[in-house]
Amino acid sequence: MTAKGQETRQRIVAAAAQLMFERGVADTTIEDVRTLAQVSNSQVYHYFADKTALVRAVIEYQTDAVIEPQEQLFARLDTLDGLREWRNFAVARQRELNCRGGCPIASLTSQLAEHDEAARLQLSHSFARWSAGLRSGLAAMHAAGRLHPDADPEALALSLLASLQGGMLITQLNRDTRPLEVALDSTLAYIESLTVP
Amino acid sequence: MTAKGQETRQRIVAAAAQLMFERGVADTTIEDVRTLAQVSNSQVYHYFADKTALVRAVIEYQTDAVIEPQEQLFARLDTLDGLREWRNFAVARQRELNCRGGCPIASLTSQLAEHDEAARLQLSHSFARWSAGLRSGLAAMHAAGRLHPDADPEALALSLLASLQGGMLITQLNRDTRPLEVALDSTLAYIESLTVP
Repeated sequence: MTAKGQETRQRIVAAAAQLMFERGVADTTIEDVRTLAQVSNSQVYHYFADKTALVRAVIEYQTDAVIEPQEQLFARLDTLDGLREWRNFAVARQRELNCRGGCPIASLTSQLAEHDEAARLQLSHSFARWSAGLRSGLAAMHAAGRLHPDADPEALALSLLASLQGGMLITQLNRDTRPLEVALDSTLAYIESLTVP
Repeated sequence: MTAKGQETRQRIVAAAAQLMFERGVADTTIEDVRTLAQVSNSQVYHYFADKTALVRAVIEYQTDAVIEPQEQLFARLDTLDGLREWRNFAVARQRELNCRGGCPIASLTSQLAEHDEAARLQLSHSFARWSAGLRSGLAAMHAAGRLHPDADPEALALSLLASLQGGMLITQLNRDTRPLEVALDSTLAYIESLTVP
């Protein structure tokens, strides 16, 4: 694909992601995407055989959009300070958004998981990638003997991700970051209780 | 309203709840609901002015359906055994459903929170009712001196609810109860770490 081709494809995916986030997958047509991205019908169909192919690309796009900004922070999750930085980043992000919209990957999950088996598997991989990012720092902490030998870095990473997701849901409903803060702080306090002085 | 009237109204709401859960709010028409509930158009409009009124009734119905079966368990959340019973109930429920569908209230949230402000407020009250149910037992535990004086029963209830929601989301995606189990177990272990022997 040429650089110009990649740019066009990316513009189509970004437009589709925006519309599917704002109005939902079911209420987004190829025609809406075409109009927002300012491309022709034949350009859309050059890159995407159908709406299903576009949905796949949107899941990939949103997964990158959610996880990539956290990657620098993942590397520092081997200390309590690093965990707090990640917690603060997640809370600040919701504050910036005025607690609107919730997590784009969670939103795609509730729309697609029961209707599109390939999308469910793809979203499951998105969460596995996210969880692996959180786990790496905790595993380093564990390997260095700074977490109790019985602590399970993989379980702690899943717990952090679950608190983040559940906290974001209630934060979205209440338009208040407190539920997210409280949920993450409980999990961080639990991890702290497992540290070895 | 007569008993027969109440029964008809309830049949309409149950049909609407089922369809909105299975195919989404946007893809459910009054006509679909009428057909499934086996009632006439005039009967539907006798009870519900429009689809918005029906959505309100569905939120109320799903809130009751989710919370009422837990109410007996809420009363026992003043002990670690009671907390474990509630945890086991939530996990067993997902296992029964083969981890399909996720939480009906969470699903309504992602569909409605950004498009229907009255629905957002109603769903926020549903979560507040759920959280209050979880808090009551923890508050009793705290008042009896069995939780550390600094422990905050309201924050712990929110954390439990967030772990449940986030855990259910990943459990739904992975078709595996483990993420839910791990998330709830971390929060229970944290609460246990705050108990006074």
